[in-house]
Amino acid sequence: MTSDVVRLSHGAGGRETTTLLEKLVISRLPSEMKTALGGVGTDELDDGATIVAGGQHVVISIDSYTVNPPFFPGGDIGKLAACGSINDVLMMGGRPVAMLDAIVAEEGLPVSDLDRIVQSFLSVLREEGVSLIGGDLKVMPRGQLDGVLITTACVGVAERPIVDSRVRPGDVVIVTGTVGEHGAAIMAAQKGIGVEAEGLVSDVQPLTRIMLPLLKEYGESIRAAQDPTRSGVAGALNEWAQKSGTVIVVNGPSIPVREEVRAYCEMLGVDPLSLACEGRALLAVDPSAADAVLALLRELGCEDAAVIGEIRGSERFRGIVLLRTEAGGLRILERPSGVIVPRIC
Amino acid sequence: MTSDVVRLSHGAGGRETTTLLEKLVISRLPSEMKTALGGVGTDELDDGATIVAGGQHVVISIDSYTVNPPFFPGGDIGKLAACGSINDVLMMGGRPVAMLDAIVAEEGLPVSDLDRIVQSFLSVLREEGVSLIGGDLKVMPRGQLDGVLITTACVGVAERPIVDSRVRPGDVVIVTGTVGEHGAAIMAAQKGIGVEAEGLVSDVQPLTRIMLPLLKEYGESIRAAQDPTRSGVAGALNEWAQKSGTVIVVNGPSIPVREEVRAYCEMLGVDPLSLACEGRALLAVDPSAADAVLALLRELGCEDAAVIGEIRGSERFRGIVLLRTEAGGLRILERPSGVIVPRIC
Repeated sequence: MTSDVVRLSHGAGGRETTTLLEKLVISRLPSEMKTALGGVGTDELDDGATIVAGGQHVVISIDSYTVNPPFFPGGDIGKLAACGSINDVLMMGGRPVAMLDAIVAEEGLPVSDLDRIVQSFLSVLREEGVSLIGGDLKVMPRGQLDGVLITTACVGVAERPIVDSRVRPGDVVIVTGTVGEHGAAIMAAQKGIGVEAEGLVSDVQPLTRIMLPLLKEYGESIRAAQDPTRSGVAGALNEWAQKSGTVIVVNGPSIPVREEVRAYCEMLGVDPLSLACEGRALLAVDPSAADAVLALLRELGCEDAAVIGEIRGSERFRGIVLLRTEAGGLRILERPSGVIVPRIC
Repeated sequence: MTSDVVRLSHGAGGRETTTLLEKLVISRLPSEMKTALGGVGTDELDDGATIVAGGQHVVISIDSYTVNPPFFPGGDIGKLAACGSINDVLMMGGRPVAMLDAIVAEEGLPVSDLDRIVQSFLSVLREEGVSLIGGDLKVMPRGQLDGVLITTACVGVAERPIVDSRVRPGDVVIVTGTVGEHGAAIMAAQKGIGVEAEGLVSDVQPLTRIMLPLLKEYGESIRAAQDPTRSGVAGALNEWAQKSGTVIVVNGPSIPVREEVRAYCEMLGVDPLSLACEGRALLAVDPSAADAVLALLRELGCEDAAVIGEIRGSERFRGIVLLRTEAGGLRILERPSGVIVPRIC
């Protein structure tokens, strides 16, 4: 243990991240330190947490954004830092209302770069009606931080929080759009390939305009919601299966993947289901509402939204994800481990 | 502007920080984007922000901690990250109930170091009765971040938020203990002097056991509260004066400074009033309650607590701080600019 060092995979959001956090943090928290004021906390390890104030669930999410490069096809670290934490509040069933940001910049960063990043961050907030209520700015000496790092905490209010452990056998799994684009775009940008020419563009976007109508119309039927960021769809579905002790069966050919992403992933031998999305949601929906949810998603402009699988109960298996392949066979879709792309978000 | 770069002073919490944030962020926020749900936001630029949920003020603070070295006399980055954000919620008049943390570590950091830091962080939370409800862990490749960086968001509830702009002529300024110790300890640690031998130890500590009884007994009489971190007592008082358009007169000889800190500062030509405290509060108190507040502070173990000045109104001057020196003269106590110690917190 004492000779161990932190590895990139510890920050990749997959198996190693969970193991390290469990060991250093979660196992040390007595249950009364996992929640506050009757809310949802580290007992659930969901996209965000809640506290209950005056009878109302206040949702809070936090994430540090380290993406490299800071400007990439489809967005930049400012847009990502705004969307990522807004989406986490939405995935908890909350309506985002306020943001706090903590920027750490490297000495020597052009002010014009910081300016572009802040403008991009603020323009998401403006469009989404989210206020910037607080923040922090620090600077590290040249060479001690590569560029800029932004941490955001988003605050929202929820009638009833959505907690992913509540998926149950019979629920239908829906994805709101094509997957893996953010990860593929960052991977290509880091490898220095002509990304725009390849058509690899991040899907980073706030999910507000999709999630608020869905929550309003079908809030009670949406059992779980997660934006498959680090470790992708494979990671998110494995978390659901493990938390709920169910088996999730996904139909590979139904999962929408853009042709450019599929080709690029094949070339590199990477599974697009392990790659981060930053503007998609995975939903587990009560089967009676699945058709209506899909229809509303289409109305809201999600033309690639699709039913990709279902939750099953099993006596023999618990906590696994099975993928039905093109050939019709079933294989286990593992929770990603190792690191595909460092600083992906 | 385009040729400007981010400088260390932009992150020092003094004049340059305010100027940059005003230009890049605050000036671009329409007033409706500065607050949310009737709370306190970037309209006040205070230690934290609030939203109102179910008639109750929910207080939220955020700060990134970059302190170098991560282990220092009196504490470490884990303790600092817990205390700093807890204290910010207290300074807003809130009772801290929950914490979220986002850790970014450098690849290759010994897990044993991270372990010590996390244990230290959790032990503060445990003692203060604050739950850890959410978090994030990311890893940056070796050489892209020096060590470890922690961002914390603390959440609390307040009956009525304390907003520093509300100081008014006649209020008495009280400090809860000796000042400048954290800054002096970090400065000495960075310069590689035998710090413990010099008796320079950080004052980092949560202010809960002081502030909760004070708020309970004299909440209505405490007009402003601030923990003088980056840019120290000089920075905090100048902020109060500017926000309220008052003149603050402080009596230099009344400000408690440990002899070791005074001697070290004299040697380096640094003003202890510009150095960060991480376990002290500055309070502006209604004059009718000042004696009682001071007596309660003494009861609570703050034997160095002292009245150090008062708020005045003036027709001719607004927004300045005057320091009465040992010799009896008055001089302007400027808001600190430049950078004394990088990565002080």
